[in-house]
Amino acid sequence: MARVFRRKRPHRYGAPPGDVQEEDLAEHIPPTISMFLYDEDHLHEERDISVDQALEMSNQQGTVWINVDGLGDLEVLESLWDAFDVHPLVREDIVNTHQRPKFEEYPDQHFLVLQMVRLVDEELAAEQVSVVFGEGWTLSFQETVGDVFDPVRDRLRGGRPRIRGSGSDYLAYSLLDAVVDGFFPILEVYGEWVEDTEHQALDDPQEQTIEDIHELKRDFLTLRRALWPLREAVNQMQRADGTGLVSDDTRTFLRDAYDHVVRVMDMVETYRELSSSLADVYYSTLSHRMNEVMKVLTIVATIFIPITFVAGLYGMNFEYMPELGYRYSYFIALGVMAAISVGMLIMFRRREWL
Amino acid sequence: MARVFRRKRPHRYGAPPGDVQEEDLAEHIPPTISMFLYDEDHLHEERDISVDQALEMSNQQGTVWINVDGLGDLEVLESLWDAFDVHPLVREDIVNTHQRPKFEEYPDQHFLVLQMVRLVDEELAAEQVSVVFGEGWTLSFQETVGDVFDPVRDRLRGGRPRIRGSGSDYLAYSLLDAVVDGFFPILEVYGEWVEDTEHQALDDPQEQTIEDIHELKRDFLTLRRALWPLREAVNQMQRADGTGLVSDDTRTFLRDAYDHVVRVMDMVETYRELSSSLADVYYSTLSHRMNEVMKVLTIVATIFIPITFVAGLYGMNFEYMPELGYRYSYFIALGVMAAISVGMLIMFRRREWL
Amino acid sequence: MARVFRRKRPHRYGAPPGDVQEEDLAEHIPPTISMFLYDEDHLHEERDISVDQALEMSNQQGTVWINVDGLGDLEVLESLWDAFDVHPLVREDIVNTHQRPKFEEYPDQHFLVLQMVRLVDEELAAEQVSVVFGEGWTLSFQETVGDVFDPVRDRLRGGRPRIRGSGSDYLAYSLLDAVVDGFFPILEVYGEWVEDTEHQALDDPQEQTIEDIHELKRDFLTLRRALWPLREAVNQMQRADGTGLVSDDTRTFLRDAYDHVVRVMDMVETYRELSSSLADVYYSTLSHRMNEVMKVLTIVATIFIPITFVAGLYGMNFEYMPELGYRYSYFIALGVMAAISVGMLIMFRRREWL
Amino acid sequence: MARVFRRKRPHRYGAPPGDVQEEDLAEHIPPTISMFLYDEDHLHEERDISVDQALEMSNQQGTVWINVDGLGDLEVLESLWDAFDVHPLVREDIVNTHQRPKFEEYPDQHFLVLQMVRLVDEELAAEQVSVVFGEGWTLSFQETVGDVFDPVRDRLRGGRPRIRGSGSDYLAYSLLDAVVDGFFPILEVYGEWVEDTEHQALDDPQEQTIEDIHELKRDFLTLRRALWPLREAVNQMQRADGTGLVSDDTRTFLRDAYDHVVRVMDMVETYRELSSSLADVYYSTLSHRMNEVMKVLTIVATIFIPITFVAGLYGMNFEYMPELGYRYSYFIALGVMAAISVGMLIMFRRREWL
Amino acid sequence: MARVFRRKRPHRYGAPPGDVQEEDLAEHIPPTISMFLYDEDHLHEERDISVDQALEMSNQQGTVWINVDGLGDLEVLESLWDAFDVHPLVREDIVNTHQRPKFEEYPDQHFLVLQMVRLVDEELAAEQVSVVFGEGWTLSFQETVGDVFDPVRDRLRGGRPRIRGSGSDYLAYSLLDAVVDGFFPILEVYGEWVEDTEHQALDDPQEQTIEDIHELKRDFLTLRRALWPLREAVNQMQRADGTGLVSDDTRTFLRDAYDHVVRVMDMVETYRELSSSLADVYYSTLSHRMNEVMKVLTIVATIFIPITFVAGLYGMNFEYMPELGYRYSYFIALGVMAAISVGMLIMFRRREWL
Repeated sequence: MARVFRRKRPHRYGAPPGDVQEEDLAEHIPPTISMFLYDEDHLHEERDISVDQALEMSNQQGTVWINVDGLGDLEVLESLWDAFDVHPLVREDIVNTHQRPKFEEYPDQHFLVLQMVRLVDEELAAEQVSVVFGEGWTLSFQETVGDVFDPVRDRLRGGRPRIRGSGSDYLAYSLLDAVVDGFFPILEVYGEWVEDTEHQALDDPQEQTIEDIHELKRDFLTLRRALWPLREAVNQMQRADGTGLVSDDTRTFLRDAYDHVVRVMDMVETYRELSSSLADVYYSTLSHRMNEVMKVLTIVATIFIPITFVAGLYGMNFEYMPELGYRYSYFIALGVMAAISVGMLIMFRRREWL
Repeated sequence: MARVFRRKRPHRYGAPPGDVQEEDLAEHIPPTISMFLYDEDHLHEERDISVDQALEMSNQQGTVWINVDGLGDLEVLESLWDAFDVHPLVREDIVNTHQRPKFEEYPDQHFLVLQMVRLVDEELAAEQVSVVFGEGWTLSFQETVGDVFDPVRDRLRGGRPRIRGSGSDYLAYSLLDAVVDGFFPILEVYGEWVEDTEHQALDDPQEQTIEDIHELKRDFLTLRRALWPLREAVNQMQRADGTGLVSDDTRTFLRDAYDHVVRVMDMVETYRELSSSLADVYYSTLSHRMNEVMKVLTIVATIFIPITFVAGLYGMNFEYMPELGYRYSYFIALGVMAAISVGMLIMFRRREWL
Repeated sequence: MARVFRRKRPHRYGAPPGDVQEEDLAEHIPPTISMFLYDEDHLHEERDISVDQALEMSNQQGTVWINVDGLGDLEVLESLWDAFDVHPLVREDIVNTHQRPKFEEYPDQHFLVLQMVRLVDEELAAEQVSVVFGEGWTLSFQETVGDVFDPVRDRLRGGRPRIRGSGSDYLAYSLLDAVVDGFFPILEVYGEWVEDTEHQALDDPQEQTIEDIHELKRDFLTLRRALWPLREAVNQMQRADGTGLVSDDTRTFLRDAYDHVVRVMDMVETYRELSSSLADVYYSTLSHRMNEVMKVLTIVATIFIPITFVAGLYGMNFEYMPELGYRYSYFIALGVMAAISVGMLIMFRRREWL
Repeated sequence: MARVFRRKRPHRYGAPPGDVQEEDLAEHIPPTISMFLYDEDHLHEERDISVDQALEMSNQQGTVWINVDGLGDLEVLESLWDAFDVHPLVREDIVNTHQRPKFEEYPDQHFLVLQMVRLVDEELAAEQVSVVFGEGWTLSFQETVGDVFDPVRDRLRGGRPRIRGSGSDYLAYSLLDAVVDGFFPILEVYGEWVEDTEHQALDDPQEQTIEDIHELKRDFLTLRRALWPLREAVNQMQRADGTGLVSDDTRTFLRDAYDHVVRVMDMVETYRELSSSLADVYYSTLSHRMNEVMKVLTIVATIFIPITFVAGLYGMNFEYMPELGYRYSYFIALGVMAAISVGMLIMFRRREWL
Repeated sequence: MARVFRRKRPHRYGAPPGDVQEEDLAEHIPPTISMFLYDEDHLHEERDISVDQALEMSNQQGTVWINVDGLGDLEVLESLWDAFDVHPLVREDIVNTHQRPKFEEYPDQHFLVLQMVRLVDEELAAEQVSVVFGEGWTLSFQETVGDVFDPVRDRLRGGRPRIRGSGSDYLAYSLLDAVVDGFFPILEVYGEWVEDTEHQALDDPQEQTIEDIHELKRDFLTLRRALWPLREAVNQMQRADGTGLVSDDTRTFLRDAYDHVVRVMDMVETYRELSSSLADVYYSTLSHRMNEVMKVLTIVATIFIPITFVAGLYGMNFEYMPELGYRYSYFIALGVMAAISVGMLIMFRRREWL
């Protein structure tokens, strides 16, 4: 399943740090820009605008949120970055979309890298979401179109006082929270998969089953790898103190987001341990069945092998075999065979094989 | 067994934090309210009253404890919450009953989330108990009717000076302690289950056995997941310092509750490691039995296969087989067969298969 | 083996903390009291005295040590507790003998809970030893008669200046040290058991062997569970600072006791890992033997099955079978059979099965 | 694969610390020296020069970087070391190329030991790179010719202002970063190997497969062993504070390098856990196939053994066997055999063996 | 192999701390004393002298190092201890040679306990080396004759300025360093053993092999148990600060010794994990071979069982069996048998068993 984090070109090896080149963007799709400009009383929303329109509007009064879907045009990105004076190392991390989730403080801006998970054709896929925010502005960058930010947009449009009246730190928190909440439906699907695999391992173990278990373990490994640094990032954003960009109010909400991350991690850890246990269950069921097969073979073979020998014995063609001529020999032989069979059956019953 | 913590709707994804809607309550049953109003000298107890009656009474002198069973009516809950000015994030966590145990400090109130475990039809079930307390008042919320608080009620009615003379922090501690003590009888049952499964794995391994072991491991995983944050919560309540709500005296008792949680965790960890070891025991017993089965098959087969061949040999119909005509051939053949059998038996005994 | 820590009534669930009732004592045996009263120059020892005699004597000059074997009489215990003003939570922990080892500081007294291990009928058994000490007095409580304190008594009687000239903190340390040293002979026995089981797993794996390994693992689990909190308790006693009850000199000796506990833990951990490895050894030996059995079966069967077929072939009764009439057919057939057998043997030798 | 870190002579045992002898160099190749002398405006590069030329040039204005490939000539090394006053313990660690990655602060110089990994004939190989730097100078020492520093050289030649305008600390960081980035292509190869082995374990398990899995595990162990101390070294360089040699700007870039190391570790850990899981997959596939083999054997044997007995029965030569003379006996016997076979097949189908 | 740390009398249980009795020495050999007296300019060395000679000489100017091989004479030991005023707890630990490596600070002396490992008849053996040092003097105690200190002696004799010009702290470091370096050749031998066992597990798994693996695991467990506290001891000596006995210069060298210990631990951990992986490899190779054996049995049996039945069928003696009389029956029967065999072979080939 999970091809996450395993990209073709994880890094232009040896490139100078903080340096972004056209070739870094080759695999990205062209950017689409949308923006929100809002304060407690007003809301202005634009979709699919040019970077110049966006920059022009962002000079007006209010908190500005510019979202970029697709990272395929360096010129567009650099105009935006230059306008908000984004740090070179941040620029590099936005474009090299293979970062671990992290939170980084810079003198006048904060930087959040997130990994948004989705299921594409039952395969786990991750997409990097980068959020940079400073006093009064927030930029978010995504690799492709389609995200988990619609609830945030709805809240902005709905005029909820908390989000509209708070600054860019609360908006950044809301985006973070949306990404974290995006893990829950994924994990519900995995919960069902684990349960299905559990039934299969217990009732009908196939060669495919162990492959499924292995893939579940691999995916939970991937999820865990995305969640540990995410927790750390939320924690660091909560304790960010250099600049006053993160308000105490937002910190309280970040505590809530931290709780959510921990709950997701909890679920992943539990599923992971269950999957490991499933491999044991699978082996055991297999062993038990092999045991059953062996028992049947052994019972049939040990009953018939001796009496077949008796039959073979009296099939010999020696000229002088006194038993052959006696009148009741045949019936005695049959009786002996029956006795052997019954004796074997009794032995098997005693050993509780039957 | 354990379906705990795996609920249908773990979260309204993307909902704004601190926001409670009617739909969050859909699966809850309607609330029943009971209350205690007490100080060192007086005790007033009411059951099954309306929220208005409760609020009216709570204006009187003394410590008030309002307990709500069932979270199915938003209006009732909001009247209570408004009366005691409960924080929005607390309200959300009370209703979304899938929280990990935790303790949260707010400026003028403290919030405890607990998971109360029970065995329903031999299945582990958990129910969220939320306790909010401030100066002179304590609110507790439970998902269903039926709880572990009767000992606390009895102590209040019995007029024990410590509980009657202490404030709401001591009452909150008592409720916490009751929930923690509720783990012990559950673990005793599990202790017996582990022992039963142990006997089965050693003496009579069935295909069912590995399933039982797997379910035990799953349940201990679930219990552990409930206990780790509970320990942390008790620890944080012990160190709560912002508000003076938790007295030094109560802290000493919280140290005792902490000890109890650690003891429960100890038991769970031990059972969990025993269960893992049981899977090994189970395999080993299976392997040993398969070995026994194989030995019987091998012994029977290796004794009879060669002598059956001898019998077959003299069953051939070649016209010219000199042995067939000799007078003692038959008896010599019988002797050879006996010699082969005895030789085999001696070899088996030497290899200690018999 | 280990039934330790698994008691019938681990707790009166829901009982108010710090409250001791008659029913808590039901399973305990009646108390026997002995005491020492000593200073650098004098020593007074009494055995089997009443609680009143003990209390009367304890008013005299010197350090007093009262030891109580058996916790079956609440009145006796309460007289003692009241005389030395023992804290309610301490009283509860003395009687509910299922505590984890711990050290607790109270304003004017310190409390040590220890678990003393013994082997009863080759079963690991633990007994709680509670030690309370304050300025000039030490109380110790044990569940049954018979303890590991004789070396301490001998040192008191022998007039060793260090123990006689030091206060109750040094006495408490000595009792703790005696309990810790009591682990060593137990572990030597376990060391031999591990070695025996090792030989069995390698040379003569029985169905019993895996049960032994499982029981060893269970016992080491139990021992570890007793030792981790013990280490913590010694550590906390070393750092106790509130009251000046523990002198710097005693701290140096506690460092030595800490070393001993760590050494015991080391041994337990090593044995535990060896036991786990033993299960692997056991499986492997079993597998190897099963392999041997299978080889014998396969060799015998694959040699005889083809030649038995040849014999069967010429046992057919078709009227027209040309080979039957030839003069050397029989010998040719025998030759073919011999050739098949030899060919098989060569193949087996090539595969190194022989 | 990995023979890394396992050298013939890991240490001249018992040699005095900080003492370098000719015999320490015996296995090293003769040194080749190259150097860069640069500042923001000028760049001077020399290759394959003598140590005297290098030292002479290094007296000029600018930052000097002298790189030595091969450690086989003590005189050359000592001239260099003496010129820059390299600490005796540093000298020892440069020559004894079996160090763990580390960063060490000395009063006027810092010392970095790195392990550069390569794949030689599909075998993991490591080479020690030692970097010493002080105010205005950097020395780097490698065991053999051929390194990962070309990107750094290109950046120097290309006149990038950041590297040319920064001091020796930034150059040291650049060398460190180049070594860290060198891990990524190696890990991509390993990623493919893991995937190949995965397919083999699932679809075509060979005796070779488990050997491959074992070698993968061994290599990931080796990589992990190189990465943990590397992370620590980067961390310590970030926090180096004694001397002011490491500027705040360089620290920001070191945070980036730290991120890279953590990402590499993440990948190694994931591959390592996948490899362990692969061993399980391999066993399981083997078991499943053995099961299939057993089933075929059992089915064939249990169908034919009983009917072969019936055939043998009527092959007996007793004179008085009434069935032999009846006209339809043969057909009845055939019918009985057919019935037995069909009955067996039905039983197998019921047990889902077919 | 390893009988290390498992001694007959690990402790005189219950003995008062800091108390040494004759019986503690019973198993030790009589002491041999040698000494060095040195400063930067002079060196005086004596071997096999009496304790009085040693004490007399030690009054002269310079740093004194007295080494005692064998702990079998209490009087001798006590003369030495008294002369240098060795602390009672140190005395006890010198004689009870079952200590974990540790470093202890006392007001005017420091105490180092080390475990020196050797291979005796391919068995891992440990010997305790105790080093006490104060201002100007160092005492070292060993259980038997023969040690790893010769390089230190050679350096003293060779007049190396660093060791001759430094104090007793540097000498103690040198002894510690010699013990640590003594681990390397042992580990090289183990490295070869691991490689040998690896080859055996892969190419020729014997019943002995798993025993070897188990013994390797046991020895690495033992080595790990000796190394963890050793690392801690070096660390504590580095941070010793109470007395000024350890100079800053020596601290730098201790950092180097710490590195060596960590490198040894690294090797042990790697070998330990490889050994665990080897057990898996061993099982897998066994399973694979069992699989091969089963396949041969199954192929032979399933080919011959059906055709043997056919032969048996026409060996029946029914009077009326029409086929028997037909002219080509025999050849048809042979053809049927051949067809069955070929069909089976085709099936096997399809299942890739051949």
